[in-house]
Amino acid sequence: MTKPILYDYYRSSAAFRVRIALNLKGVDYEPVSVDLRQGAQKGADYRARNPQGLVPMLEMNGMRLTQSLAIIDWLDTAVPQPRLIPADPAGRAHVMALALAIACDIHPLNNLRVLNYLSGPLEQPEDARNAWYAHWISEGFTALEAMSAPRARRFLFGDTPTLADICLVPQMYNARRFHVPLEAYPTLVRIDAEASGLDAFAAAHPDKVAPAA
Amino acid sequence: MTKPILYDYYRSSAAFRVRIALNLKGVDYEPVSVDLRQGAQKGADYRARNPQGLVPMLEMNGMRLTQSLAIIDWLDTAVPQPRLIPADPAGRAHVMALALAIACDIHPLNNLRVLNYLSGPLEQPEDARNAWYAHWISEGFTALEAMSAPRARRFLFGDTPTLADICLVPQMYNARRFHVPLEAYPTLVRIDAEASGLDAFAAAHPDKVAPAA
Repeated sequence: MTKPILYDYYRSSAAFRVRIALNLKGVDYEPVSVDLRQGAQKGADYRARNPQGLVPMLEMNGMRLTQSLAIIDWLDTAVPQPRLIPADPAGRAHVMALALAIACDIHPLNNLRVLNYLSGPLEQPEDARNAWYAHWISEGFTALEAMSAPRARRFLFGDTPTLADICLVPQMYNARRFHVPLEAYPTLVRIDAEASGLDAFAAAHPDKVAPAA
Repeated sequence: MTKPILYDYYRSSAAFRVRIALNLKGVDYEPVSVDLRQGAQKGADYRARNPQGLVPMLEMNGMRLTQSLAIIDWLDTAVPQPRLIPADPAGRAHVMALALAIACDIHPLNNLRVLNYLSGPLEQPEDARNAWYAHWISEGFTALEAMSAPRARRFLFGDTPTLADICLVPQMYNARRFHVPLEAYPTLVRIDAEASGLDAFAAAHPDKVAPAA
Protein backbone atom coordinates (compact mmCIF):
# COMPACT_ATOMS: atom_id res chain seq x y z
CA MET A 1 0.00 0.00 0.00
CA THR A 2 1.30 3.49 -0.81
CA LYS A 3 1.38 5.76 2.21
CA PRO A 4 -2.15 7.09 2.66
CA ILE A 5 -3.11 10.61 3.65
CA LEU A 6 -5.52 10.79 6.58
CA TYR A 7 -7.63 13.94 6.74
CA ASP A 8 -7.91 14.16 10.46
CA TYR A 9 -8.93 16.26 13.42
CA TYR A 10 -7.51 15.37 16.79
CA ARG A 11 -10.80 15.54 18.71
CA SER A 12 -13.01 13.90 16.08
CA SER A 13 -14.20 10.54 17.41
CA ALA A 14 -14.59 9.16 13.93
CA ALA A 15 -11.04 10.17 13.00
CA PHE A 16 -9.77 8.75 16.31
CA ARG A 17 -11.29 5.37 15.30
CA VAL A 18 -9.41 5.37 12.00
CA ARG A 19 -6.13 6.38 13.67
CA ILE A 20 -6.48 3.40 16.02
CA ALA A 21 -7.23 1.02 13.13
CA LEU A 22 -4.27 2.27 11.07
CA ASN A 23 -2.01 1.84 14.09
CA LEU A 24 -3.31 -1.68 14.81
CA LYS A 25 -2.64 -2.61 11.18
CA GLY A 26 0.82 -1.03 11.31
CA VAL A 27 0.01 1.28 8.39
CA ASP A 28 2.12 4.41 8.28
CA TYR A 29 0.08 7.45 7.19
CA GLU A 30 0.43 11.16 6.62
CA PRO A 31 -2.01 13.12 8.76
CA VAL A 32 -3.48 16.36 7.41
CA SER A 33 -5.35 18.29 10.07
CA VAL A 34 -8.73 19.74 9.07
CA ASP A 35 -9.58 22.21 11.80
CA LEU A 36 -13.27 21.61 12.54
CA ARG A 37 -13.39 24.45 15.08
CA GLN A 38 -12.27 26.84 12.34
CA GLY A 39 -14.72 25.37 9.82
CA ALA A 40 -11.98 24.15 7.45
CA GLN A 41 -14.16 21.13 6.55
CA LYS A 42 -16.67 23.51 4.95
CA GLY A 43 -14.15 25.15 2.63
CA ALA A 44 -14.63 24.66 -1.12
CA ASP A 45 -11.26 22.93 -1.34
CA TYR A 46 -12.14 20.22 1.18
CA ARG A 47 -15.76 19.88 0.02
CA ALA A 48 -14.55 19.25 -3.53
CA ARG A 49 -12.65 16.26 -2.18
CA ASN A 50 -15.31 15.17 0.32
CA PRO A 51 -18.82 16.53 -0.27
CA GLN A 52 -19.89 15.54 3.25
CA GLY A 53 -17.35 17.97 4.67
CA LEU A 54 -16.57 15.58 7.49
CA VAL A 55 -13.43 13.91 8.75
CA PRO A 56 -11.96 11.33 8.49
CA MET A 57 -11.12 10.76 4.86
CA LEU A 58 -8.37 8.41 3.70
CA GLU A 59 -6.77 9.19 0.36
CA MET A 60 -4.42 7.04 -1.65
CA ASN A 61 -3.87 5.92 -5.26
CA GLY A 62 -6.55 8.38 -6.36
CA MET A 63 -9.10 6.75 -4.05
CA ARG A 64 -10.92 8.78 -1.43
CA LEU A 65 -12.55 6.75 1.30
CA THR A 66 -14.99 8.35 3.74
CA GLN A 67 -17.03 7.21 6.73
CA SER A 68 -14.89 5.72 9.49
CA LEU A 69 -16.63 2.32 9.54
CA ALA A 70 -16.37 1.96 5.76
CA ILE A 71 -12.68 2.92 5.91
CA ILE A 72 -11.96 0.36 8.64
CA ASP A 73 -13.94 -2.34 6.80
CA TRP A 74 -11.90 -1.59 3.66
CA LEU A 75 -8.65 -1.64 5.65
CA ASP A 76 -9.55 -5.07 7.04
CA THR A 77 -9.48 -6.42 3.48
CA ALA A 78 -6.48 -4.42 2.27
CA VAL A 79 -4.35 -5.37 5.30
CA PRO A 80 -5.89 -8.58 6.65
CA GLN A 81 -3.86 -8.91 9.86
CA PRO A 82 -4.65 -8.37 12.66
CA ARG A 83 -8.28 -8.92 11.85
CA LEU A 84 -10.55 -6.13 13.21
CA ILE A 85 -13.93 -7.55 12.13
CA PRO A 86 -14.32 -11.30 12.78
CA ALA A 87 -14.62 -13.55 9.75
CA ASP A 88 -17.29 -15.84 11.18
CA PRO A 89 -20.73 -14.43 10.35
CA ALA A 90 -22.26 -14.53 13.85
CA GLY A 91 -19.22 -12.90 15.43
CA ARG A 92 -19.10 -10.36 12.66
CA ALA A 93 -22.77 -9.49 13.18
CA HIS A 94 -22.23 -9.01 16.92
CA VAL A 95 -19.16 -6.80 16.47
CA MET A 96 -20.92 -4.74 13.80
CA ALA A 97 -23.98 -4.33 16.02
CA LEU A 98 -21.84 -3.06 18.92
CA ALA A 99 -19.95 -0.69 16.64
CA LEU A 100 -23.14 0.63 15.04
CA ALA A 101 -24.79 1.04 18.47
CA ILE A 102 -22.07 3.63 19.07
CA ALA A 103 -21.57 4.98 15.55
CA CYS A 104 -25.30 5.37 14.75
CA ASP A 105 -27.03 5.67 18.10
CA ILE A 106 -24.67 7.71 20.27
CA HIS A 107 -22.04 9.62 18.37
CA PRO A 108 -24.14 11.36 15.67
CA LEU A 109 -26.27 13.01 18.34
CA ASN A 110 -23.30 14.51 20.08
CA ASN A 111 -20.97 15.75 17.43
CA LEU A 112 -19.98 19.33 16.97
CA ARG A 113 -22.42 20.27 14.20
CA VAL A 114 -25.34 19.08 16.35
CA LEU A 115 -24.13 20.94 19.44
CA ASN A 116 -23.79 24.02 17.25
CA TYR A 117 -27.40 23.64 16.09
CA LEU A 118 -28.58 23.36 19.70
CA SER A 119 -26.79 26.53 20.74
CA GLY A 120 -27.51 28.36 17.45
CA PRO A 121 -31.02 27.94 15.98
CA LEU A 122 -32.45 26.33 19.14
CA GLU A 123 -30.79 28.88 21.46
CA GLN A 124 -30.08 26.29 24.13
CA PRO A 125 -27.84 27.33 27.04
CA GLU A 126 -24.73 25.34 27.91
CA ASP A 127 -26.38 23.30 30.67
CA ALA A 128 -29.11 22.09 28.31
CA ARG A 129 -26.46 21.11 25.74
CA ASN A 130 -24.53 19.22 28.39
CA ALA A 131 -27.69 17.44 29.55
CA TRP A 132 -28.42 16.47 25.92
CA TYR A 133 -24.89 15.15 25.55
CA ALA A 134 -25.04 13.13 28.76
CA HIS A 135 -28.53 11.82 27.97
CA TRP A 136 -27.54 10.12 24.70
CA ILE A 137 -24.36 8.70 26.14
CA SER A 138 -26.21 7.31 29.18
CA GLU A 139 -28.97 5.80 27.01
CA GLY A 140 -26.41 4.34 24.64
CA PHE A 141 -23.98 3.03 27.26
CA THR A 142 -26.78 1.42 29.30
CA ALA A 143 -27.76 -0.58 26.22
CA LEU A 144 -24.16 -1.25 25.22
CA GLU A 145 -23.26 -2.53 28.70
CA ALA A 146 -26.19 -4.97 28.55
CA MET A 147 -25.35 -6.05 24.99
CA SER A 148 -21.65 -6.48 25.85
CA ALA A 149 -21.47 -7.95 29.33
CA PRO A 150 -22.64 -11.52 28.56
CA ARG A 151 -20.14 -12.02 25.73
CA ALA A 152 -17.21 -9.77 26.58
CA ARG A 153 -13.82 -11.31 27.27
CA ARG A 154 -10.60 -9.36 27.40
CA PHE A 155 -12.17 -7.09 24.80
CA LEU A 156 -15.77 -6.57 23.69
CA PHE A 157 -15.45 -9.61 21.45
CA GLY A 158 -12.70 -12.10 22.18
CA ASP A 159 -9.14 -11.51 23.28
CA THR A 160 -7.94 -9.11 20.62
CA PRO A 161 -9.36 -5.68 19.81
CA THR A 162 -12.05 -5.38 17.15
CA LEU A 163 -14.00 -2.61 15.48
CA ALA A 164 -16.26 -2.57 18.57
CA ASP A 165 -13.38 -1.59 20.88
CA ILE A 166 -12.19 0.89 18.28
CA CYS A 167 -15.56 2.63 18.54
CA LEU A 168 -15.78 2.32 22.32
CA VAL A 169 -12.55 4.07 23.29
CA PRO A 170 -13.23 7.39 21.52
CA GLN A 171 -16.79 7.41 22.87
CA MET A 172 -15.48 6.89 26.43
CA TYR A 173 -13.05 9.74 25.87
CA ASN A 174 -16.00 11.97 24.92
CA ALA A 175 -18.00 10.81 27.94
CA ARG A 176 -15.14 11.77 30.28
CA ARG A 177 -14.66 15.14 28.59
CA PHE A 178 -18.28 15.91 29.39
CA HIS A 179 -18.11 14.41 32.91
CA VAL A 180 -20.71 11.72 32.26
CA PRO A 181 -20.79 9.28 35.23
CA LEU A 182 -19.51 5.85 34.20
CA GLU A 183 -19.98 3.67 37.32
CA ALA A 184 -22.99 1.92 35.78
CA TYR A 185 -20.90 0.51 32.94
CA PRO A 186 -18.23 -1.74 34.53
CA THR A 187 -17.68 -3.83 31.40
CA LEU A 188 -17.18 -0.76 29.23
CA VAL A 189 -14.87 0.89 31.78
CA ARG A 190 -12.75 -2.26 32.14
CA ILE A 191 -12.40 -2.80 28.40
CA ASP A 192 -11.71 0.87 27.72
CA ALA A 193 -8.80 0.68 30.19
CA GLU A 194 -7.57 -2.58 28.65
CA ALA A 195 -7.64 -1.20 25.11
CA SER A 196 -6.25 2.20 26.05
CA GLY A 197 -3.18 0.45 27.42
CA LEU A 198 -2.25 -0.82 23.97
CA ASP A 199 0.25 1.25 22.01
CA ALA A 200 -2.02 1.44 18.95
CA PHE A 201 -4.78 3.05 20.99
CA ALA A 202 -2.51 5.23 23.11
CA ALA A 203 -0.70 6.68 20.09
CA ALA A 204 -4.03 7.61 18.47
CA HIS A 205 -5.33 9.50 21.52
CA PRO A 206 -6.31 13.14 20.91
CA ASP A 207 -3.73 14.35 23.45
CA LYS A 208 -0.99 12.60 21.47
CA VAL A 209 -1.97 13.99 18.09
CA ALA A 210 -3.18 17.46 19.09
CA PRO A 211 -1.49 20.31 17.25
CA ALA A 212 1.02 22.18 19.41
CA ALA A 213 -0.62 25.08 21.26
CA MET B 1 -32.43 -20.95 6.83
CA THR B 2 -35.31 -21.46 9.29
CA LYS B 3 -37.98 -18.82 8.95
CA PRO B 4 -36.76 -15.77 10.90
CA ILE B 5 -38.86 -13.51 13.10
CA LEU B 6 -38.50 -9.81 12.30
CA TYR B 7 -39.30 -7.47 15.16
CA ASP B 8 -40.63 -4.64 13.12
CA TYR B 9 -42.47 -1.33 13.14
CA TYR B 10 -44.03 -0.18 9.92
CA ARG B 11 -42.73 3.40 10.05
CA SER B 12 -39.25 2.62 11.34
CA SER B 13 -36.72 3.46 8.61
CA ALA B 14 -34.26 0.93 9.96
CA ALA B 15 -36.89 -1.84 9.92
CA PHE B 16 -37.96 -0.74 6.41
CA ARG B 17 -34.35 -1.32 5.27
CA VAL B 18 -34.35 -4.88 6.61
CA ARG B 19 -37.75 -5.64 5.07
CA ILE B 20 -36.40 -4.57 1.67
CA ALA B 21 -33.27 -6.69 2.09
CA LEU B 22 -35.25 -9.78 3.14
CA ASN B 23 -37.54 -9.31 0.13
CA LEU B 24 -34.61 -8.86 -2.27
CA LYS B 25 -33.09 -12.08 -0.92
CA GLY B 26 -36.42 -13.88 -1.18
CA VAL B 27 -36.37 -14.77 2.53
CA ASP B 28 -39.79 -15.42 4.01
CA TYR B 29 -40.11 -14.03 7.55
CA GLU B 30 -42.62 -13.67 10.33
CA PRO B 31 -43.13 -10.03 11.28
CA VAL B 32 -43.84 -9.14 14.91
CA SER B 33 -44.92 -5.53 15.29
CA VAL B 34 -43.33 -3.59 18.16
CA ASP B 35 -45.43 -0.47 18.52
CA LEU B 36 -42.93 2.36 18.99
CA ARG B 37 -45.66 4.98 19.45
CA GLN B 38 -46.99 2.95 22.39
CA GLY B 39 -43.50 2.45 23.84
CA ALA B 40 -43.58 -1.36 23.42
CA GLN B 41 -39.84 -1.32 22.69
CA LYS B 42 -39.19 -0.12 26.25
CA GLY B 43 -41.06 -2.99 27.92
CA ALA B 44 -39.05 -5.42 30.06
CA ASP B 45 -39.98 -8.28 27.76
CA TYR B 46 -38.53 -6.67 24.64
CA ARG B 47 -35.55 -5.14 26.44
CA ALA B 48 -34.60 -8.58 27.76
CA ARG B 49 -34.32 -9.68 24.14
CA ASN B 50 -32.80 -6.47 22.80
CA PRO B 51 -31.22 -4.17 25.40
CA GLN B 52 -31.16 -1.28 22.96
CA GLY B 53 -34.95 -1.34 22.83
CA LEU B 54 -34.90 -0.53 19.13
CA VAL B 55 -36.26 -2.19 16.03
CA PRO B 56 -35.42 -4.03 13.85
CA MET B 57 -34.23 -7.29 15.40
CA LEU B 58 -34.00 -10.53 13.47
CA GLU B 59 -34.33 -13.71 15.49
CA MET B 60 -33.68 -17.26 14.37
CA ASN B 61 -31.96 -20.41 15.62
CA GLY B 62 -31.46 -18.76 19.01
CA MET B 63 -29.57 -15.87 17.38
CA ARG B 64 -30.72 -12.31 17.84
CA LEU B 65 -29.32 -9.85 15.34
CA THR B 66 -29.72 -6.11 15.86
CA GLN B 67 -28.75 -2.96 13.94
CA SER B 68 -30.13 -2.87 10.42
CA LEU B 69 -26.75 -2.56 8.67
CA ALA B 70 -25.30 -5.45 10.66
CA ILE B 71 -28.37 -7.57 9.86
CA ILE B 72 -28.11 -6.83 6.14
CA ASP B 73 -24.35 -7.48 6.13
CA TRP B 74 -25.03 -10.84 7.85
CA LEU B 75 -27.81 -11.64 5.38
CA ASP B 76 -25.45 -10.98 2.48
CA THR B 77 -23.29 -13.86 3.71
CA ALA B 78 -26.12 -16.18 4.75
CA VAL B 79 -27.97 -15.75 1.43
CA PRO B 80 -25.32 -14.64 -1.07
CA GLN B 81 -27.60 -13.85 -4.04
CA PRO B 82 -28.48 -11.25 -5.08
CA ARG B 83 -25.47 -9.50 -3.62
CA LEU B 84 -26.36 -6.30 -1.70
CA ILE B 85 -22.84 -5.17 -0.79
CA PRO B 86 -20.33 -5.43 -3.63
CA ALA B 87 -17.51 -7.95 -3.23
CA ASP B 88 -14.78 -5.76 -4.71
CA PRO B 89 -13.19 -3.66 -1.96
CA ALA B 90 -13.41 -0.24 -3.63
CA GLY B 91 -17.06 -0.74 -4.59
CA ARG B 92 -17.82 -2.07 -1.17
CA ALA B 93 -16.22 0.97 0.48
CA HIS B 94 -18.26 3.34 -1.71
CA VAL B 95 -21.56 1.56 -1.02
CA MET B 96 -20.82 1.40 2.71
CA ALA B 97 -19.94 5.12 2.75
CA LEU B 98 -23.23 6.03 1.05
CA ALA B 99 -25.20 3.80 3.41
CA LEU B 100 -23.43 5.18 6.48
CA ALA B 101 -23.90 8.77 5.27
CA ILE B 102 -27.62 8.06 5.69
CA ALA B 103 -27.55 5.63 8.62
CA CYS B 104 -25.11 7.65 10.76
CA ASP B 105 -25.42 11.21 9.54
CA ILE B 106 -29.12 11.70 8.75
CA HIS B 107 -31.40 9.11 10.27
CA PRO B 108 -30.21 9.10 13.92
CA LEU B 109 -30.91 12.81 14.22
CA ASN B 110 -34.49 12.44 13.10
CA ASN B 111 -35.83 9.35 14.74
CA LEU B 112 -38.71 9.32 17.14
CA ARG B 113 -36.74 9.28 20.40
CA VAL B 114 -34.85 12.41 19.31
CA LEU B 115 -38.00 14.25 18.26
CA ASN B 116 -39.49 13.30 21.63
CA TYR B 117 -36.47 14.81 23.40
CA LEU B 118 -36.85 18.03 21.42
CA SER B 119 -40.52 18.39 22.34
CA GLY B 120 -40.06 17.07 25.90
CA PRO B 121 -36.97 18.28 27.81
CA LEU B 122 -36.13 21.00 25.27
CA GLU B 123 -39.77 22.18 24.98
CA GLN B 124 -39.48 22.89 21.28
CA PRO B 125 -42.68 23.66 19.36
CA GLU B 126 -43.66 21.67 16.32
CA ASP B 127 -42.25 24.14 13.79
CA ALA B 128 -38.82 24.03 15.43
CA ARG B 129 -38.94 20.22 15.35
CA ASN B 130 -39.89 20.27 11.69
CA ALA B 131 -37.10 22.73 10.91
CA TRP B 132 -34.65 20.45 12.74
CA TYR B 133 -35.90 17.47 10.74
CA ALA B 134 -35.62 19.26 7.41
CA HIS B 135 -32.20 20.71 8.27
CA TRP B 136 -30.51 17.33 8.76
CA ILE B 137 -32.13 15.82 5.69
CA SER B 138 -31.13 18.80 3.54
CA GLU B 139 -27.54 18.74 4.85
CA GLY B 140 -27.33 15.01 4.35
CA PHE B 141 -28.99 14.86 0.93
CA THR B 142 -26.86 17.73 -0.41
CA ALA B 143 -23.76 15.71 0.46
CA LEU B 144 -25.26 12.43 -0.72
CA GLU B 145 -26.26 13.91 -4.09
CA ALA B 146 -22.68 15.14 -4.60
CA MET B 147 -21.20 11.80 -3.48
CA SER B 148 -23.59 9.82 -5.67
CA ALA B 149 -24.01 11.73 -8.90
CA PRO B 150 -20.59 11.04 -10.47
CA ARG B 151 -20.82 7.28 -9.98
CA ALA B 152 -24.54 6.48 -10.04
CA ARG B 153 -25.94 4.30 -12.80
CA ARG B 154 -29.39 2.75 -12.71
CA PHE B 155 -28.93 2.59 -8.94
CA LEU B 156 -26.56 4.37 -6.57
CA PHE B 157 -23.90 1.79 -7.42
CA GLY B 158 -24.28 -0.22 -10.59
CA ASP B 159 -27.37 -1.67 -12.19
CA THR B 160 -28.78 -3.70 -9.30
CA PRO B 161 -29.86 -2.40 -5.91
CA THR B 162 -27.36 -2.35 -3.07
CA LEU B 163 -27.33 -1.48 0.60
CA ALA B 164 -27.03 2.18 -0.44
CA ASP B 165 -30.39 2.13 -2.26
CA ILE B 166 -31.88 0.17 0.65
CA CYS B 167 -30.95 3.07 2.94
CA LEU B 168 -31.99 5.77 0.46
CA VAL B 169 -35.61 4.74 -0.12
CA PRO B 170 -36.74 4.83 3.55
CA GLN B 171 -34.95 8.16 4.02
CA MET B 172 -36.76 9.62 1.00
CA TYR B 173 -40.03 8.37 2.43
CA ASN B 174 -39.26 10.25 5.64
CA ALA B 175 -38.30 13.38 3.72
CA ARG B 176 -41.64 13.36 1.89
CA ARG B 177 -43.60 12.75 5.09
CA PHE B 178 -42.06 15.93 6.47
CA HIS B 179 -42.47 17.86 3.20
CA VAL B 180 -38.75 18.44 2.69
CA PRO B 181 -38.14 19.91 -0.81
CA LEU B 182 -36.30 17.45 -3.03
CA GLU B 183 -35.68 19.36 -6.29
CA ALA B 184 -32.01 19.85 -5.47
CA TYR B 185 -31.37 16.09 -5.46
CA PRO B 186 -32.17 14.82 -8.97
CA THR B 187 -29.99 11.72 -8.71
CA LEU B 188 -31.56 10.69 -5.43
CA VAL B 189 -35.10 11.35 -6.70
CA ARG B 190 -34.48 9.36 -9.90
CA ILE B 191 -32.98 6.38 -8.09
CA ASP B 192 -35.64 6.40 -5.37
CA ALA B 193 -38.29 6.12 -8.11
CA GLU B 194 -36.34 3.39 -9.87
CA ALA B 195 -35.92 1.32 -6.71
CA SER B 196 -39.43 1.93 -5.44
CA GLY B 197 -40.75 0.37 -8.63
CA LEU B 198 -39.23 -2.99 -7.73
CA ASP B 199 -41.50 -5.48 -5.98
CA ALA B 200 -39.05 -6.04 -3.15
CA PHE B 201 -39.09 -2.34 -2.27
CA ALA B 202 -42.80 -1.81 -2.89
CA ALA B 203 -43.83 -4.73 -0.68
CA ALA B 204 -41.71 -3.38 2.18
CA HIS B 205 -43.26 0.10 2.08
CA PRO B 206 -44.83 1.29 5.36
CA ASP B 207 -48.23 1.65 3.69
CA LYS B 208 -48.10 -2.02 2.68
CA VAL B 209 -47.16 -3.37 6.10
CA ALA B 210 -49.07 -0.93 8.34
CA PRO B 211 -51.38 -2.59 10.84
CA ALA B 212 -55.05 -2.29 9.90
CA ALA B 213 -56.59 0.87 11.37
